[in-house]
Amino acid sequence: MRIALLGGTGDIGEGLALRWAHDTDHEVVVGSRDPERARDAASRYAAELAERGVEGDVSGFANEMAADRGDVVVLAVPAAHVTATVESVADRLGPDAVLVSPAVSMERTEAGFRYTPPAAGSTTLAAAAAAPEGVPVVGAFHNLAAGRLSDLDAPLGLDVLVVGDDAEATRTVRRLAEEIDGLRALDAGGLAASPEVESLTPLLVTLAVNNAGLHDLGVRFE
Amino acid sequence: MRIALLGGTGDIGEGLALRWAHDTDHEVVVGSRDPERARDAASRYAAELAERGVEGDVSGFANEMAADRGDVVVLAVPAAHVTATVESVADRLGPDAVLVSPAVSMERTEAGFRYTPPAAGSTTLAAAAAAPEGVPVVGAFHNLAAGRLSDLDAPLGLDVLVVGDDAEATRTVRRLAEEIDGLRALDAGGLAASPEVESLTPLLVTLAVNNAGLHDLGVRFE
Repeated sequence: MRIALLGGTGDIGEGLALRWAHDTDHEVVVGSRDPERARDAASRYAAELAERGVEGDVSGFANEMAADRGDVVVLAVPAAHVTATVESVADRLGPDAVLVSPAVSMERTEAGFRYTPPAAGSTTLAAAAAAPEGVPVVGAFHNLAAGRLSDLDAPLGLDVLVVGDDAEATRTVRRLAEEIDGLRALDAGGLAASPEVESLTPLLVTLAVNNAGLHDLGVRFE
Repeated sequence: MRIALLGGTGDIGEGLALRWAHDTDHEVVVGSRDPERARDAASRYAAELAERGVEGDVSGFANEMAADRGDVVVLAVPAAHVTATVESVADRLGPDAVLVSPAVSMERTEAGFRYTPPAAGSTTLAAAAAAPEGVPVVGAFHNLAAGRLSDLDAPLGLDVLVVGDDAEATRTVRRLAEEIDGLRALDAGGLAASPEVESLTPLLVTLAVNNAGLHDLGVRFE
């Protein structure tokens, strides 16, 4: 399977690219608005994998080209850019493509980090509203700390909550999540349940800030 | 310390009463609108503890009497009754009492359970708005499954998220939470962060419904 990571040069995109390239045989396509940056990031990821004796299949392209090639297209961009990113690649998505939305909108306040969803109700729902007719959007990977995901020496042992209205697309994303060592994918309901899933992310950041010894937190349901 | 559990005859109240009476030396006062029901529940809890060779200190009273006696007063009533319960005991709370709000408002939808906070922003914030001047409200115990908590044979190994604006009251509640075997209390920020904490509860229920093998779920941050 070909996984395109739009905005795959930074943050959560880097972690997902490294983990999928390291743990699976899928082809990972890193996307960026700047194709040069995408190629640089892909080379950097490939070099890190090579150091570990893994020949990962990682390439870099402009976002539009990456989207064009993706069976699964992850919107690994900041929440504020999700809608524009979907619109910019809308006519490049294949008929069977699945969009994945991991971004969360939040702000820092005195009381802690707060969830600040867009008018659509959640960033995942905003992505779904912007997606071309017939292209399913699945919400996933909202609750993973980017730093821990990018560190291939860091064990995960965490849950990934997956929301979606298209059963087949949701299953595909759950399977891809579980192919990363140490991740368990759980069915967290339909897209309308995405605000509850996204809300967890500011909570994770607050907990990491407020509690000694906790950082790069993830969540586990037991 | 004397812990009053208003609405301590059912659901989360039963679990907290049993756990505190079993695991600590605190005095547990079960409250109910009907004092007869409170006394019956207290006898039932005491009998269960006696079977395990534990002489727990559990008594039952009408909510007002229970509140009057509590150093810490837990609003273990359904979310819709929190404000009325606070108002009904407001003139009975001691000058150093701490109110604890564990209730969450949610509804079942096709997409999963959804968080339906009151106009105050959260049930915890609604409790704070109803509390008498100077009586601190702490949010805690939102994310524990009542059935698992009430089953003294069930291991916990879970986190309790505690939110509050009064540092001393929040510390007191964190300490009380950690005195229950298998609970770790985390500082989840100020009261304004309570919606993110409460949102987790409908998510836990959805996950338990949608995923085989998961039930009476709690959460662990790792």
